[in-house]
Formats: sequence, structure tokens, C-alpha cells
Amino acid sequence: MKAARLYEYDPAMNVELKIEDVAPPEITGPNEVVVKVGAAGLCRTDLHIIEGVWKDIMDGEGTLLPYIMGHENAGWIEDVGSAVTSVKPGDAVIVHPHRSCGICLNCRYGHDMYCDHGLFPGLGLDGGFAEYFKTSESSVIKLNTGITPLEVAPMADAGITAYRAAKKAAKLTYPGAWTVLLGIGGLGHIALQCLKHMSGGRVIAVDREPAAQVLAKELGADVVLDGGPDLIEQVKEVTGGGAHVVIDFVGELGVENICWKLLRQGGELIVVGYGGKIEIPTLEFVVNEIKIGGSLVGDYIELVELMELNADGKVKMHQTEYKLANINQAIDDFKHRRFTGRGVIVP
Amino acid sequence: MKAARLYEYDPAMNVELKIEDVAPPEITGPNEVVVKVGAAGLCRTDLHIIEGVWKDIMDGEGTLLPYIMGHENAGWIEDVGSAVTSVKPGDAVIVHPHRSCGICLNCRYGHDMYCDHGLFPGLGLDGGFAEYFKTSESSVIKLNTGITPLEVAPMADAGITAYRAAKKAAKLTYPGAWTVLLGIGGLGHIALQCLKHMSGGRVIAVDREPAAQVLAKELGADVVLDGGPDLIEQVKEVTGGGAHVVIDFVGELGVENICWKLLRQGGELIVVGYGGKIEIPTLEFVVNEIKIGGSLVGDYIELVELMELNADGKVKMHQTEYKLANINQAIDDFKHRRFTGRGVIVP
Amino acid sequence: MKAARLYEYDPAMNVELKIEDVAPPEITGPNEVVVKVGAAGLCRTDLHIIEGVWKDIMDGEGTLLPYIMGHENAGWIEDVGSAVTSVKPGDAVIVHPHRSCGICLNCRYGHDMYCDHGLFPGLGLDGGFAEYFKTSESSVIKLNTGITPLEVAPMADAGITAYRAAKKAAKLTYPGAWTVLLGIGGLGHIALQCLKHMSGGRVIAVDREPAAQVLAKELGADVVLDGGPDLIEQVKEVTGGGAHVVIDFVGELGVENICWKLLRQGGELIVVGYGGKIEIPTLEFVVNEIKIGGSLVGDYIELVELMELNADGKVKMHQTEYKLANINQAIDDFKHRRFTGRGVIVP
Amino acid sequence: MKAARLYEYDPAMNVELKIEDVAPPEITGPNEVVVKVGAAGLCRTDLHIIEGVWKDIMDGEGTLLPYIMGHENAGWIEDVGSAVTSVKPGDAVIVHPHRSCGICLNCRYGHDMYCDHGLFPGLGLDGGFAEYFKTSESSVIKLNTGITPLEVAPMADAGITAYRAAKKAAKLTYPGAWTVLLGIGGLGHIALQCLKHMSGGRVIAVDREPAAQVLAKELGADVVLDGGPDLIEQVKEVTGGGAHVVIDFVGELGVENICWKLLRQGGELIVVGYGGKIEIPTLEFVVNEIKIGGSLVGDYIELVELMELNADGKVKMHQTEYKLANINQAIDDFKHRRFTGRGVIVP
Repeated sequence: MKAARLYEYDPAMNVELKIEDVAPPEITGPNEVVVKVGAAGLCRTDLHIIEGVWKDIMDGEGTLLPYIMGHENAGWIEDVGSAVTSVKPGDAVIVHPHRSCGICLNCRYGHDMYCDHGLFPGLGLDGGFAEYFKTSESSVIKLNTGITPLEVAPMADAGITAYRAAKKAAKLTYPGAWTVLLGIGGLGHIALQCLKHMSGGRVIAVDREPAAQVLAKELGADVVLDGGPDLIEQVKEVTGGGAHVVIDFVGELGVENICWKLLRQGGELIVVGYGGKIEIPTLEFVVNEIKIGGSLVGDYIELVELMELNADGKVKMHQTEYKLANINQAIDDFKHRRFTGRGVIVP
Repeated sequence: MKAARLYEYDPAMNVELKIEDVAPPEITGPNEVVVKVGAAGLCRTDLHIIEGVWKDIMDGEGTLLPYIMGHENAGWIEDVGSAVTSVKPGDAVIVHPHRSCGICLNCRYGHDMYCDHGLFPGLGLDGGFAEYFKTSESSVIKLNTGITPLEVAPMADAGITAYRAAKKAAKLTYPGAWTVLLGIGGLGHIALQCLKHMSGGRVIAVDREPAAQVLAKELGADVVLDGGPDLIEQVKEVTGGGAHVVIDFVGELGVENICWKLLRQGGELIVVGYGGKIEIPTLEFVVNEIKIGGSLVGDYIELVELMELNADGKVKMHQTEYKLANINQAIDDFKHRRFTGRGVIVP
Repeated sequence: MKAARLYEYDPAMNVELKIEDVAPPEITGPNEVVVKVGAAGLCRTDLHIIEGVWKDIMDGEGTLLPYIMGHENAGWIEDVGSAVTSVKPGDAVIVHPHRSCGICLNCRYGHDMYCDHGLFPGLGLDGGFAEYFKTSESSVIKLNTGITPLEVAPMADAGITAYRAAKKAAKLTYPGAWTVLLGIGGLGHIALQCLKHMSGGRVIAVDREPAAQVLAKELGADVVLDGGPDLIEQVKEVTGGGAHVVIDFVGELGVENICWKLLRQGGELIVVGYGGKIEIPTLEFVVNEIKIGGSLVGDYIELVELMELNADGKVKMHQTEYKLANINQAIDDFKHRRFTGRGVIVP
Repeated sequence: MKAARLYEYDPAMNVELKIEDVAPPEITGPNEVVVKVGAAGLCRTDLHIIEGVWKDIMDGEGTLLPYIMGHENAGWIEDVGSAVTSVKPGDAVIVHPHRSCGICLNCRYGHDMYCDHGLFPGLGLDGGFAEYFKTSESSVIKLNTGITPLEVAPMADAGITAYRAAKKAAKLTYPGAWTVLLGIGGLGHIALQCLKHMSGGRVIAVDREPAAQVLAKELGADVVLDGGPDLIEQVKEVTGGGAHVVIDFVGELGVENICWKLLRQGGELIVVGYGGKIEIPTLEFVVNEIKIGGSLVGDYIELVELMELNADGKVKMHQTEYKLANINQAIDDFKHRRFTGRGVIVP
């Protein structure tokens, strides 16, 4: 089958994925399924993988290369292991990116993502920038009637990462309360739609790109700002003293040390983007009683819930499609923000 | 001033309020305010007061009559006590129905409604079916610019009772989860609007009246049912096994023993309407692990939040206006459901 | 192997289990395990099974008889299916009573007990009143070093049912708040110990039996009452207006309609015992804003947590042991409350 | 009256409070009360005030000096304003340090400490290192029978700051979960006692001082560590991967950047001590999904609850008493940790 493989990490990102012919994956365990890829989203984490940001965490010895990235996948069941009962070949599915064991205490507590034995296809083992890839029965969710893999693939990771953060924000807000979203890209525009349906509060969308600002307005942001040097003052004024919640989808380039200054007393920052370093006096934490917490990709249930929002027409992925053969172009366009919403790779 | 007063309780409701001239209220304490009534909502509780349902609870000796009902009030500050600083004559305000002390432990825990020293103008002491009435500084909320008392008066009680129940339901639901609303009248149509903005879940609206069904559909109900004899089966089928939450705005006429049968395992019934008696085996509670809880009028903060939803254009009161002189006609129309939404009395 | 089997339901309970030789269970699926029984607790549900209370729910056609009851089991792994990796023969384990699938949405939401495909050995299929019984890998928890099956068997059901209710109560209470426990038997005495370690609040223990009252005092109850006719007044006085939480371990014999009258405004009743019928006006729910919810057996995680409390020496099962051959005597003693705490059957 | 006043800020703390005769406070508003001081706790914040840490926040122009510090006060009501009804001269009371308005939205949301018009006697206006001081009716809590002001004074601030943090930790933990307390001083030893009664989890107490380690063991810490260079490894081993919650009562001296490394995935750091700066990569937040939040002094309700724990004998303040005339000695002993628990000033 055709697949795009990464051969080396490069902080400068002067590398291209190689499009080549490789053997398709085969079932080796009773709970495995092989999925024929319908579409695979392109994620900022893919850029960070190429840059080597994740190398120490998951590939300390650098022996995993070359491999196929791609962890936002949807498609059709192609083959199933002997113990699989809930799906069959031909079923249209979206695939949660994490293969969790379901038995360890973390799994039993519902923290799929902290599974003691978890695997993450596309991050250290072969993923979906290919014609086929392999995962577990427990990672797939059947699509609702009328929904195609192409429409939803980036929901599998970008979508649920945004949804998880938005769900946390929705729990913390109420009518009259303000949430600031920093970055209205592939994740931010999903979080915005979720918040409009799950919280009675108000949303300030911040992005430097005019196209992203237009999208934010269309999706119902109460206020749209361009993230200029007076952002803190603007937010304090609009909100009457600071935001109740800030979600930072950037996490680097200096944004990471502006975002917590947007909070009011008792406010909470949810960190989704990464790359930078937060520096904050303990006095600031105590006097203003603010809170900062990271948010990882959502769990299986959160993907189920996001698919329900999508089926109800409440949340839609804005995306641009690229053929697998053009994946390096897609990566370059993503780096330079030449599209709004999400880029999607189609085999 | 003109006022409508109740002179006797009558379970058959064959009594009329008397429209008469009475002395206007006067400030006697430093924290009191007198409000010139702009509008006063007509509440099902007013019917129950006339019927004598509340007599034992608040007027055991029957010595409170005659008095002026009306506990859903908005208007303009007319006069203030010596210690009042947050409002001044002329300010447009909506009035929380409960005068709480702010000092007892219940108040400090945020349970305004459980205040050890609370008063409830319109229920045992003079309320707003008049030209003026008296309350406390701590019960009033200034209206946003451009909002008039007439537009929002029933928010003061019908609104926050519905909002409180909807907020509880929103916390219990999530995308894909179902809430059933029984009764799309003055409260139900507000709860429906709140849920559409505060929960990612779905709503089934149930009402026997075609006009209420039309209103429910306009306000975004996912499914509208007429509450016929096969209601339980219909709900089980639509929801795939039962509702996650049911809010019963009726609470009598047999509805009270149908509503908990609409729940799925782990589901919760929120009781708002009253008059009937629930009979339920303890085995039913245990095996299905269902929960039933009453919901009272919302607290001060909930009125603040509802006014924010209203200011954002997310929740609007559908109402029919009557002059104070025609209040008995309004009561009769309400009893026979000759209007949808809420009835409002204007001095 | 020796086993005690039920041959007929009898509301009057004039039946005995038959002690007979039956074939031991065999592994037929890859995830199954056979457990050599160390001890099996005797539960009030066993009495209700014999009475036929559960017949309609789980054995409508009455075709399941004869079978082996016993759903509170601990012992040692005897044999494992081909896919089992987390335990091996010889491991000492306690067994969660429910075999859940781990794949359906209820399981993914963490509601083991609502599993779409769940099985409950001891309730409709063979359980632990025998030398061996069969369950799933996902139902067993390895015992901490030094803990024996005999010490903890009734934790598997009585324990976690009490723990689940106590955990709910602990979330609802705080220093100065009052929880009333009705019935200090096999469940109540566990709930009492849990509350003393997990809530800063106070506990009133109610039981008619002097021995249970003594046990309650030893275990740290702040107040012990005998459940006489003036119980409501006593509780209102001690608590200054009513309990914040009531847990009813009886659920019948009239207790079910006393317990909710012990609540203060905003209070919550947790129903664990069953058999009776609650009759309550909707007005009572609304005016006092009380809540009533059933509580089922705890889930797998709750058994893990309870075993940690036990390992820390914070919660201990008080029990009386009977040989399997004397199980009918044990049942008779249980019916007539001739022992405090829990009865346990040892093969 | 005698009072100890601060005349200048000095980062090196080479200043002494002056003991001098000043006019006692007088009632000027209807809701005010004057309290005859029974005892006043000495707080690390007093050290920070002297150092000038709080100068920019509350005394930007440096015009507030000289004033009387002391914000952990208990005593007897001496005089009351015209509108005060809940206390009378002679009543023994403990005093919440914050005078909140009760009317602003922050107060109505229950966030006393965020009050728009709050005052903090002892921090910018005269406090309790004197014979008398003035506060509001809404700040005082009557002592339970048999409790003396001297026994509880530091509960008013040290106590509730520890209680608030412990209450947050208790909500996040469960049987088997681990909380690490860094610093077993005046706050830490209270948090430890609270956790032992409010969480079913386990506690690791960390302190460099042998006397504090002994106290921690006496108060029930499951594990006591000395905070040596291998603290991170020790905690990871004891907890099997990291703590679920860490409460940092130090917040400076390098501890602030060790404490978050003690957490497991999904863990939460509660920052109480201050002075240092946290530096942490956004990637760390995201990958481990940890959370860091500051915790301020507890609110009025939390002081009520803590007094209930104290009345139940569950939490006791360990303290050393100094006469007001020796306050400078007390400050010096505090700086050099020459006593365990809390220092208390008695007029």
C-alpha cells in the first residue's frame, strides 16, 4: 500500500515525508481491527513529532524511525480479529487515537489516556497517513448513518482535544461568564462551536489571522480580537476585570505568559498548545487564586459525545483536503497557516 | 394606590381578587426599597395560594388575609432606606421574590431560599399586584440598558424556577443525552431555551396543547410529543431506553407517577410542579438507581444569570399582558390555558 | 464439589437450600477464571431471592432453578482462560459480583453495573455457596499481602454497597453536617466506618437492636438512637432542624416513609434497603427541595477503594462464620438478627 | 490601649514593631463591632508584610504606615453598632480576617475573599496585635461552649488557609490516593489533621525539621519524609508513580519547582506558600495533564466548618504563646523556626 513515512527528526523541519510502497498491516491479536483509511487529519503534533519535540518522551533511543504518522483517522473496517464482535468489515468508523487496555486501574477510573499499556498509532508506531492501518476494537466508534469518514476524521484527535478543553471550560462558566480562546485554528474553531452549545457564557476569540477572525465571527464568537499588544487591557475591559477561563491553543511564542494574565481572580487557564515555558510567581497563584491545568487529547467517551454533537449539526469541522501524494505540501501550508480550520489527508 | 387583594382561600377557586384602593407601602428599615411596579407575572403558585394549598405552610391560622399577591415583579426604584447604596430612585430593576437576611448560615452557604429569616412578598405579605410594593436592597438587580420591566417581570420567579431546574439538568446531561420536559407553559418554555444553550444534549418537549407544541418546536425542541397514553413507550424508543433527566412542571393529575417511569437506569427526575403524590417502590429506586429531587425557585445569583441569558438574546419570555383591573380574567384564562407562555399583570 | 442450591421461591421462606454434590465449573471463554471459594458472604438479597422478590426481574419464566446463590466471594484463582494475563492460579482475590463487558457505552461511562451484557453469578447463575465458581478476569482484584479471603469476602457486595452509599453521603456533607444511618447491620456498620474517615461530618446511627447500638458506638457514631416512635423529633432536635443526608438500609417495614421526614431542607435520602413503597407528595419535594435516590451495589473501582481502606485498617468487616453445611442455620439466624455484622459461609 | 505597630518595610527584616499606647477603635458604622482581643496568631504573611512583599499590592504609595498588624484574631465582643443583632457584648467569638460587603456579585457567588469592597484588618488597616480592634458583624462567629479565644485564634487565618487547601485535596482524593504536604508548620499540621478526617486517602508529610516530623507522625501521617535531595524519587516509589495531590506550604526556596515534579499524571498542585517563581514547560502541563492552582485564605463558611471540626476534637492547633510585649521575640523565633505549630500573641 502507499504510505508516507518519517525518516528523521529535524528541529528546523527541513525534512520531507517519503511516499513509498509498504506492506499493509495484518491482524495478529484477537481484538485487533484493520481500518481502510478514508481520511486522516494533519495535526500540530505531527509538526512537533518532525521537530523532535516528542523524541525524548516516546523514542529516547531514536530506533522507531521510519514510521507512518497520522493519528486522526476515520475509514471503514477492513478486517477483524477472532474476538471482535461489535464491528464487522464494511462498517464506517472513526478511530480514537489511543489503544488502551481496559484493565489497568487508570482505564477502570475512566482515564483512557493514562493507560499503563497504551499505544498511540501515528506516534511511535504506524498510523493513518497510508491506505490501511491497525488498531483495537475498543478504539473504534461506528459512524451515524449519513456521516462519511472524510467529514469527521480530524474529530478523532483535534476534535476531541478541543472538545475536552471546551467541556472543562463549560463546567467552569455560566451565563455572563467569559471564556477566551487563544488561536482559532483546527482546534480553536471546534472549541468555539462546542462552547456555544454547552455553556451559557460568552466567548472571546483571539487570532492574528483575518481569515480565522472571520471564521470565529461566523461561528458565533461574542467578541473577536486580533491578539495585538494591548490584548490584556482589551480583555480586562470587555470582561470587567478578566476572563473566567482562558484556553490557550498556542502554548508558545510568548502567548504562554500572556494568557494567564487575562484571568480574573479565581480564573482558570487550560493549556492545550505547547512548546513554550510558563514563568509565574507563586504569589500570583495565591493572591489571585488562579489555576493552570494542561489538557490532553480527549478520551473515548469524549469522541462519542463529539460525534453526537456533529450528528446534531452543532459542531462541524472546517477543513482543506490534500491527497496523500501531496502531504508535504499540506505540512508546509499548515506551518505557514495557508488554510483555516484543519488539513486532511486523503489516500 | 390600586391593588388586587385576596380575601379567602377556596379549593374550588370560586373567588375573585378585589381591586381596591389601599395605602402604598412605606420604608421602615434602612435596607428597604419601594418599587413602582412595571409588571408582575401571574404564577401557578398564585392559583395554589387561592386554592389554599399553601395555607398550612405559611398561614396556619388564616390571619394573613386579605393581602396582595404577586411575586414576579419588575419596575423602578421609587424610594430607598437610609443604608441603601447600590440603587437609587429611577433605576429599572427586577426583583428576586425572596427577602433573605444574608447573615444566617443558610444564606452564607448560598441557599438564599432556605434563609432562617426570609420573607416572600406576594406569599403571606403584600406583593406586586399593585402600583407599588416593598422589598430589600439585597433582592433587586438593575436591568441592563435597553431592557424594560415589562419584558422580564416573570423571569423573577417563573424564569428562575425554570432556570434552576434547567441548570441542574444541564449539569447531568451531555451530547447525546436526553432531557424530557413535561409541560411547555410559562416555566417549561424557559427551561427549553436554557437547555438549548447550556447543555449539548437533546430535549423532548411534552405538552397536550397544540399551541404549546408549536412553541416548543419553534424554540428548538429535538422531539415534541403530545403526552398521550403511550408516552412511556415513545420516550423509551426515542431515547434508546429512557431519558437521562426528566423535569416535571406539572406534578399532579397523574403525571407525577408517569414521569419517573420515563427515566433510564441512573436517571434523575426533577420535580417542579406540585399537587399530586408520588408512589414508588424502594426496589424501583435501588434496581434502577434513579433519583427524584424537588426544585424550588432559583436564588438571587440564578436571577442574575438568567438576566444575562436574556440580555444575550438567548432566552425570551413569551407572555400575554393584562391590566391590573382585568386580573380575574387573567386568572381564569390561566386556569383554562387560554394563552401560551406567561400571563403578566400591568398596573 | 459441594454446593448449596435453591430449588424454589417462597414468599414465606419455608424452604431450605439443598447441600449436594455438583460438577465444578469449567473455563469456556478466554477471559474467564475459576475461583476456589475461601468465603462467601450471606446477603439480605439472598433472603429476597428466596422470597421471590427478584423473580420477575431476572427469572420471569422461573426456569433458572435450581442454582447456587452466593455473590459476595473471595478465594484463590484455580484456573484461567487463555487470554488472562493479570492473575494466575494461586493468587488470593476478592471478586466483584458483576461480570461486565467493558465495551458497551455504560461500561465506558464507568457504570459497570448498568452494563448492557452484564452477568451476576449468584443471581440467576451459579455463585459462591460452593467450593468453586466461575467469573471473569475483569471482576477480580488481587488481595494485599497479609489479607485473607475469609476476612474480606462480604466486602465484595455488602461492603461496596455500603461504601457506595457512604461515598455519596461524604460528598454531600461537611464538618458540622449530619448523616443518619438507618440500620447498623452488615451494610450499616461498614458505611459508618467509611463515613468516619471520608467525611468531616457527624453520624447518627439508628438501630432497634442493643447489640447493633453497642457496635455503632464502638465504631464512632456521634449519636446512637433506638429508632423509637419519636425518632423524627429526636433527629430534628439533635441536628437542629433535620439531617443533611439519610441512608436507609432497611427500605421496608414503614421505615421507608419515616426516613425522608428526617431530612432538613435541601437534604438527600439514599435508599439502599428495599421492599416497601415510598409515598410522598410532590409539594414535599418542592417546598423542602429534598432529593431521594437509590443506590445499587458499588462498581469495580469502589471495591478497589474499599480494599484500600481495609488494608489501611480503617474499615473492618464484623462477621460470624458458618460452614457451608450449616447454611440454612445461617439464613435462619440472619432472618432473626441473631448475629451483628455479616454472616459468612465457609466451604 | 497597648498595640504593636509597624513603621517601615524592610526586605532584610531588620526592623522591630513598636509597642506603644494608641487610642482604641470606635464604632463608626451600624454593622461594626469592636472586639477585645483574647489572642492573635502570628502568620508568615506578617513576615512578608514586614519584608514589603505585599507593599505593591496594598500600599503602593507607602502611606498606610504605621499600622497594627495581626489578622488571626479571637476574643470577646466589646461594643456593637446600631444594626448588629446576632452578637452582643461579652460573646466569645473568632473573627474571619476579611470584612466583605455581602452585596457585590463576588460575595453573592460565595467568594467572600474576592469581595469588590473587602477590607482586611491587619493588612493595611489596624488589626489584632493590640488590646482591641474593629471589624464587622458579618465577620464574627460565636465560639462553641467551652472553647476559649486563646485555643483557636490562629484558626482564623492559618487554620482556614490550611482547611481550604485540605478541603480541595479531599475532593480530589479517595482511598488509596496520596496527598503530599510540603511543610508541617502552623498551616501544614492543620491540613494534615483535616485530611485524616475528610479524605479516605493517604498522606505523606515532608519537613526538614525533626520536631515537625515527630508532630506529623503523631498526627497520623502515613509516611514522613525529610525533604532531602532524593525527595522526588522517594515520593514516586512510595506512591507508585507520583502523588495525586501536593499541597505546597512553602512556595519558595526552590521547593516551588520540586513540588510539581512529585505529581502523577492527572495530579494537582495546590500552592499556599509564596515567594518563589514556578517555571514549567507547557509540554509538561499537556503531556502529564497536571494542574497547578493557588489557594487563598478560606472564606467565612470554611471558618465555621473548621470550628466544627475543632469542637468535635478532630483538629487542634499546636501553638506557643507570647505576650504582646514580646512580639518581636516571637517574630524572631518564627523566622528561625524555634517552635513547631503556630505562635500566638496574647495582650
